[in-house]
Amino acid sequence: MLDLSTQPHHDGSPLYVDTDAPGLGGSVTLRLRVPRGFAVEQVFVRSTPDAEPHYDEASVLREDADAVWWSVSVRIVNPLTRYRWLLSGPDGAYRWLSGDGLHEHDVPDAYDFTLSAYAAPPAWAQDAIVYQIFPDRFARSAAADGRETPEWAIPATWDKRPAPTIPAVSAELYGGDLDGVIEHLDHIEDLGCNTIYLTPFFPAGSTHRYDSTTFDTVDPLLGGDEALVRLVQAAHARGMRVIGDLTTNHSGVGHAWFQSALADEASPERAFYYFREDGSYLGWYDVPSLPKFRFGPELRARLTDGPESVVGRWLAEPFKLDGWRIDVANMTGRHAADNDNLDVARSIRATMDAVAPEALLVAEHCHDASGDLSGEGWHGAMNYAGFLRPIWTWLRDPAYHRQFLGLPIETPRLPAESAFRAIRAFQGVSPWRSTATSWSLIDSHDTPRARTVMGAGAQCVAAGMLFTFPGAPMVFMGGELGGEGTHGEDARRGMPWDRPDAWDTATHESYRALARLRAAYPALRRGSLRWLAVGEEALAYVREDDDATLLCLAARGDGEPLRVRASAIGLADGEQAQNLYGGADPVTAVDGTLTLPAEGPQFQVWMAGARHG
Amino acid sequence: MLDLSTQPHHDGSPLYVDTDAPGLGGSVTLRLRVPRGFAVEQVFVRSTPDAEPHYDEASVLREDADAVWWSVSVRIVNPLTRYRWLLSGPDGAYRWLSGDGLHEHDVPDAYDFTLSAYAAPPAWAQDAIVYQIFPDRFARSAAADGRETPEWAIPATWDKRPAPTIPAVSAELYGGDLDGVIEHLDHIEDLGCNTIYLTPFFPAGSTHRYDSTTFDTVDPLLGGDEALVRLVQAAHARGMRVIGDLTTNHSGVGHAWFQSALADEASPERAFYYFREDGSYLGWYDVPSLPKFRFGPELRARLTDGPESVVGRWLAEPFKLDGWRIDVANMTGRHAADNDNLDVARSIRATMDAVAPEALLVAEHCHDASGDLSGEGWHGAMNYAGFLRPIWTWLRDPAYHRQFLGLPIETPRLPAESAFRAIRAFQGVSPWRSTATSWSLIDSHDTPRARTVMGAGAQCVAAGMLFTFPGAPMVFMGGELGGEGTHGEDARRGMPWDRPDAWDTATHESYRALARLRAAYPALRRGSLRWLAVGEEALAYVREDDDATLLCLAARGDGEPLRVRASAIGLADGEQAQNLYGGADPVTAVDGTLTLPAEGPQFQVWMAGARHG
Repeated sequence: MLDLSTQPHHDGSPLYVDTDAPGLGGSVTLRLRVPRGFAVEQVFVRSTPDAEPHYDEASVLREDADAVWWSVSVRIVNPLTRYRWLLSGPDGAYRWLSGDGLHEHDVPDAYDFTLSAYAAPPAWAQDAIVYQIFPDRFARSAAADGRETPEWAIPATWDKRPAPTIPAVSAELYGGDLDGVIEHLDHIEDLGCNTIYLTPFFPAGSTHRYDSTTFDTVDPLLGGDEALVRLVQAAHARGMRVIGDLTTNHSGVGHAWFQSALADEASPERAFYYFREDGSYLGWYDVPSLPKFRFGPELRARLTDGPESVVGRWLAEPFKLDGWRIDVANMTGRHAADNDNLDVARSIRATMDAVAPEALLVAEHCHDASGDLSGEGWHGAMNYAGFLRPIWTWLRDPAYHRQFLGLPIETPRLPAESAFRAIRAFQGVSPWRSTATSWSLIDSHDTPRARTVMGAGAQCVAAGMLFTFPGAPMVFMGGELGGEGTHGEDARRGMPWDRPDAWDTATHESYRALARLRAAYPALRRGSLRWLAVGEEALAYVREDDDATLLCLAARGDGEPLRVRASAIGLADGEQAQNLYGGADPVTAVDGTLTLPAEGPQFQVWMAGARHG
Repeated sequence: MLDLSTQPHHDGSPLYVDTDAPGLGGSVTLRLRVPRGFAVEQVFVRSTPDAEPHYDEASVLREDADAVWWSVSVRIVNPLTRYRWLLSGPDGAYRWLSGDGLHEHDVPDAYDFTLSAYAAPPAWAQDAIVYQIFPDRFARSAAADGRETPEWAIPATWDKRPAPTIPAVSAELYGGDLDGVIEHLDHIEDLGCNTIYLTPFFPAGSTHRYDSTTFDTVDPLLGGDEALVRLVQAAHARGMRVIGDLTTNHSGVGHAWFQSALADEASPERAFYYFREDGSYLGWYDVPSLPKFRFGPELRARLTDGPESVVGRWLAEPFKLDGWRIDVANMTGRHAADNDNLDVARSIRATMDAVAPEALLVAEHCHDASGDLSGEGWHGAMNYAGFLRPIWTWLRDPAYHRQFLGLPIETPRLPAESAFRAIRAFQGVSPWRSTATSWSLIDSHDTPRARTVMGAGAQCVAAGMLFTFPGAPMVFMGGELGGEGTHGEDARRGMPWDRPDAWDTATHESYRALARLRAAYPALRRGSLRWLAVGEEALAYVREDDDATLLCLAARGDGEPLRVRASAIGLADGEQAQNLYGGADPVTAVDGTLTLPAEGPQFQVWMAGARHG
């Protein structure tokens, strides 16, 4: 067992950093928690103002039964402040604490903690619980019956499993629409989600609609512009938000801009794409139906710059979307020697500031997004790399033998320590507030279903982590019902509204309870994440703020029980932590130790000590 | 003992990468060495073209007695290609090999290997052995006697130890000059150095001359422009190069530009500096004598852009400098929200391309320089962070108790493993060719002397590593004679030309022999660096190319002997590696193992197997 409770801790949460929205020229107070027994004589923060190291000495702020808290004020000189802690101990002990843990030697700046002085994400983003809807498959209103099937589409019956092969892929039209969403807002609200993320609603040549033919209207198949207005108004009336999905990397081949570009070499739209000398063009991954955007002033003016751009118009009246999820954000504006990615993201942010300052901008990004998460562009990302992948590799069902999300190998099954190290490393390379604003997920419309990868028991462990981690949980529609699917297309099954027998009510109840727990305890949304112990089969961590110390246990299978220093969560011998979720008994401090349940799969949350949420 | 010979290896040297100057749109062949016994079933390289992961599967290239070599071709899509290896083993083993070693979990891209498609550094840079001269203290020609002492200066006798306090600091004028350098080129050439780096030669208000009053002329105290022309011609005649030192971060308060700026708010020079509303100005670290540059078109035109700029003129006839070392390169152009650093570096590179395409551009950078070493700007850096600091922390004399180069603590004394991990980490964040072009150093005019930090025995171990590592060794004048100094100012003592008793001839001979060894074996300049074993007191590594496998041992003190798998350097039982440096016996493979000498301090190099340099 790896006992992390003996190690110093710092992260970007309010217990450790007094603001996540520092101003240039201002200062920030940083705090470090050093467990008793960890010998330290002096503590400094190293920052690098104007790219030169600078040291500020910390002083002891307070001591409690378990730890000594150090505090120091650091000036915010540049838009990004990178820093790490220097812990100087007796006998010349020399240690750095950075985002990937303690080091007994010098390290590069890669894992330095980061504070961003760029404008902060909207505060609500950290309170969001996101429900992802793939509109064609969520719910079909009565109005859908009267709509004509477009030429590219193959009508499908609602309960049919999506066919995995061409030509059916992306062409099987189930007929879900936005009024269908409105009709089921109760379900989403009851689940505890407060934010809807709709995959694209623009007219297109497929059911996924990432190949839009225009950004000017809502697809009539979904009910048109009025249906979107109705949906957003209905959501807002419930205090829910709605996020759109915009493809800034490419359009569909049928897009009006691309058709102009094809028809007329002198058209302004010709410059929106990468045309070669021979008249051919660059498609995303060389897919001819998805011509790749080439950014220039005119494309920016139409797509991202200002209130009249696509980005701006849908955030304004009458639509009033609450933000954008950006498709293929990682590749947007990037091709060979061109790199307009940051410019595009900045442009979108500026438009948001002008039109809808509370809007959220989340990037699709499937690997290390840290280079794009300084805070100047995307507020956050879909956290595949730092959440989904580590969780999958730990919780994978031993019987699941499928490819690992784009990797040319089977999904590995790794010990808990690997998940811990990966999660910590990815958190360590981005500003805390970017991680806290990013969307944690265990599956999406682009992946196999968590249920299929993990099985029912482990899915509920994964869901437990999803709802108790920094980062807004994102539930892909149907995951709460135990929906299955062996790949993205297969995961896009029609919601079983009329088949109650297909609902996994236990999973549904778990999700509902977890969402309520997250809503009840700000520590789960904004608190620190302090790791306590890692075994082969189990992980224990604390989410904590001034009001609550919540102990979380995630166990994959039966194993040696994790033994945790009781003082690390503020418990003296004989004191108990009461269970809040998962149904376990209270845990009691005995001889300074808490012994956590050894069985798995299970996920538990206990409230420690005298604090109350 | 940490046995690294059992681990897969890759670096950026020609054994592992077929070119360090790839072209956009081309491809590069990468190779991986996997020791027998390390179970691998499939090997892939992950790169991220246009910021999206991409996998290329490697195949077995060849097998030798010790290892299986895998090979794969990777496309160069963007100016920077980041990549790492995925090793898929039996039983689902899942490992990544990146610049900081093996990981059994997903990691961010921070330590991915890097190939740069920006124009490569001049080839000679990897063959350079640099001798750093602080002109006022190196040698005084007869002409110096006739020169007037400027107002700011305090004349000092040559053998006087520099005073450590104001007003003497930076004012004690010893009177060394460029003709003095010419008179001692024999010494430099005999030492084995082929490149002279002169600290600034511009007129200034101090003996260090980093506070220049003009960039137009050579200080008359040094002999003026003609002396520089003479020096460069004399050096070139010996096949040696001369590098200048330019301050792009600030000028002296007495600089003509600054005086214009002060005198006339309407002057073009006013925009070269950061003037505040109240008429005060920003000094580097608020030092009033060093006003900080603010970059704009006119300053760039005068300082860095084009043949008529300062950068350009000194590279051209009649001076023909071979490159620039840029002072405070890390902070250049960086202040608060301003960051013109890369633009300045690009501008210098463009001027070099136009005026002197073979010129070298090396940045002063005292911590993690990797963010500035993509290859688009500086070719390399003075490698304080990735070489000097790790070496110091390992080889520090236990009796040395002084501050650690800018850190607010004493220089720590750490085990060899810390040095190994730090060196590997810093190499892991920069393109290999940047590291190979950077200057390794164990001291400089800005630091205590290596001799003072380490003592004589350990200095020779440090020198051994200096001359056998990737990166051009830089010797600060007098280090080869065992010069001492407790801080930078104290280290700038006059060279003891007339005091042969002050020469540590053993150290001098070590340096001479090491420089010759480096010159004789391209593997020491361009070969791979493969770590074999790390103990508490000793490190063993291999420098290797197609022609030679050189085994290096660096031992700080007596300890357990390192035992190395003999096949890792190509030796079968009974075969020997002959000693090339250090005087040890040959080492013989017995039962598959080489047992290296246990005593320290010592530094040894052996030539392994049948290969010959």
